Amino acid sequence: MTKPLLRVLEGSVLERPPIWIMRQAGRYLPEYRELRSRAKNFLDFCYAPALATEAVMQPLRRFPLDAAILFSDILVVPDALGRSVSFVEGEGPKLDPLIEEGAWRFGDVEKSLQRLAPVYETVERIKSQLPKETALIGFAGAPWTVATYMLQGEGGEKDRARRAAYHRPGDVDALLAVLVEATARHLAEQVKAGAECVQIFESWAEGLPPALFERLVLKPTEALIARLASLGASVPVIAFPRGCGGYLKLYTERVKAQAIGIDTGTDPAFASAAARPGQALQGNLDPQLLVAGGEALRRGAEAVIEGFRGRPHIFNLGHGITPEAKPEHLAALVDLVKGRA
Amino acid sequence: MTKPLLRVLEGSVLERPPIWIMRQAGRYLPEYRELRSRAKNFLDFCYAPALATEAVMQPLRRFPLDAAILFSDILVVPDALGRSVSFVEGEGPKLDPLIEEGAWRFGDVEKSLQRLAPVYETVERIKSQLPKETALIGFAGAPWTVATYMLQGEGGEKDRARRAAYHRPGDVDALLAVLVEATARHLAEQVKAGAECVQIFESWAEGLPPALFERLVLKPTEALIARLASLGASVPVIAFPRGCGGYLKLYTERVKAQAIGIDTGTDPAFASAAARPGQALQGNLDPQLLVAGGEALRRGAEAVIEGFRGRPHIFNLGHGITPEAKPEHLAALVDLVKGRA
Repeated sequence: MTKPLLRVLEGSVLERPPIWIMRQAGRYLPEYRELRSRAKNFLDFCYAPALATEAVMQPLRRFPLDAAILFSDILVVPDALGRSVSFVEGEGPKLDPLIEEGAWRFGDVEKSLQRLAPVYETVERIKSQLPKETALIGFAGAPWTVATYMLQGEGGEKDRARRAAYHRPGDVDALLAVLVEATARHLAEQVKAGAECVQIFESWAEGLPPALFERLVLKPTEALIARLASLGASVPVIAFPRGCGGYLKLYTERVKAQAIGIDTGTDPAFASAAARPGQALQGNLDPQLLVAGGEALRRGAEAVIEGFRGRPHIFNLGHGITPEAKPEHLAALVDLVKGRA
Repeated sequence: MTKPLLRVLEGSVLERPPIWIMRQAGRYLPEYRELRSRAKNFLDFCYAPALATEAVMQPLRRFPLDAAILFSDILVVPDALGRSVSFVEGEGPKLDPLIEEGAWRFGDVEKSLQRLAPVYETVERIKSQLPKETALIGFAGAPWTVATYMLQGEGGEKDRARRAAYHRPGDVDALLAVLVEATARHLAEQVKAGAECVQIFESWAEGLPPALFERLVLKPTEALIARLASLGASVPVIAFPRGCGGYLKLYTERVKAQAIGIDTGTDPAFASAAARPGQALQGNLDPQLLVAGGEALRRGAEAVIEGFRGRPHIFNLGHGITPEAKPEHLAALVDLVKGRA
């Protein structure tokens, strides 16, 4: 029998939505914090198949979740491309930024990605240990989101990245083309290793005028999904354009994804009206409700379930779970979504 | 003859839109940086009528803008309410945050606002010096945006603020009620001193689930506009719900504002479809284009003008001008919008 999450990605409306949680393997779990302390750098942790696999399995031992997602980071792609990515405690990622003036050079994409072999080994290991009802999701950042980090050199502000899109349009388009190719290959390798579907995180779809949304978000994501198919990796795609606001309808029309991730700041009714008929939607509980818990959590979860009722729906948060979330609140949420509360 | 900006707020469609720029008095101007250096703290600068008035007049000497906006800060309201606001160079504002546990107390609103007398004196001084075609805009932060700073203690993240809305709903609603009253009185005093219209900055409308958008954004803003009218300050209102995304139609229906500010990440076509018939829209050029300049600026500005053509439109950026913007690019933009390029 097909796993519930995959059935929804095929367009089925289930009586109760399958559930998984963005960053379900993460700092809100004490066992994760212990595990994480065994590697000095975050990327070393991501590149250690035994540690990364254990991180994925931890939440599954606590909660009957319907999917596991590879433990990795969207910045492994620029890391493989030689942008010396590092994670500074409490400050987020730092990259050797692409300089505002001067040439940008990248080596051979296929060869660069060999550095990510441990990631694909992690996918294989997870696949061999997963409960049989649990789907395995691979993932990558969308080209513009990853390009933003590469242009900016860090997270947070995106001014230098957007400025580059105006100042050096040809170079930014070439960078996006490199990222389309690298990301498609990276996802195809995950699929080859056992991923049953993939999520594309467009974390920085916000704040773009129409011409840039077209050029930086829509076109590269279309190209990525087409290239993924041409590489023979024909699995369902969940595309998550966080912060895309009023562009949602345009995005669902243009991006050929089986499911669209919906962020916390979007009304499920608005999202449903923007989706293609029968298209699955994923989301969108406020992560702060897993800190708050109690009656607010129950009402919030019910509003999400009701909001997406009648269409293929994967229950999730509208953003990653935060370190302050309480595991017992997640347990209560899973019970509620599964009708056991 | 009525000033062009005020005519648009009455619903007129002008051949060329009037133009002003958010943060037009600001760090991108060398003469502002010199002026700013005369006061140690930013709030001292805001509370010095001679300095604040001069800051307002500076861009008007360079560019034939259609409006001036009071030089002040949305955080003067919590400052008046006793939250000891300070601005740390390079870090943004810091407030004595409302603690997560324990009672929140505020004194008498009318009495607290007496601290803001220098702001109203500034409005009077500006009014007496303005060119006769230039409209004078007063402003304040929307209740939720100001509350977010008060709950969080700083800008940037909003997690503690949103958590408080779930954890302590009664207290957060009471805080919003205090802010509705204080903000309405603050705006009414600006109108009494000479402001011809007011802008309400809802800078943090993003990321809210429907129930919170209703409770934190829509209801307090409706209450604020109603209270402003009941205080006799019947001037046009420009409401700017930055990042409200898919809620825009709901916002335009509920918030009785003469104009709606549109952010950079919103398609003018989407905004026009969301607006009430004949309602004025303001925006929404990407501020990065005033850094980039040249052909990209020209194309971007023309797309904005075309995007709002046929409806009452006030040309502006979709976010404040940045310190990196070049004054000569703003000069070129004003010429272009006024048909002199």
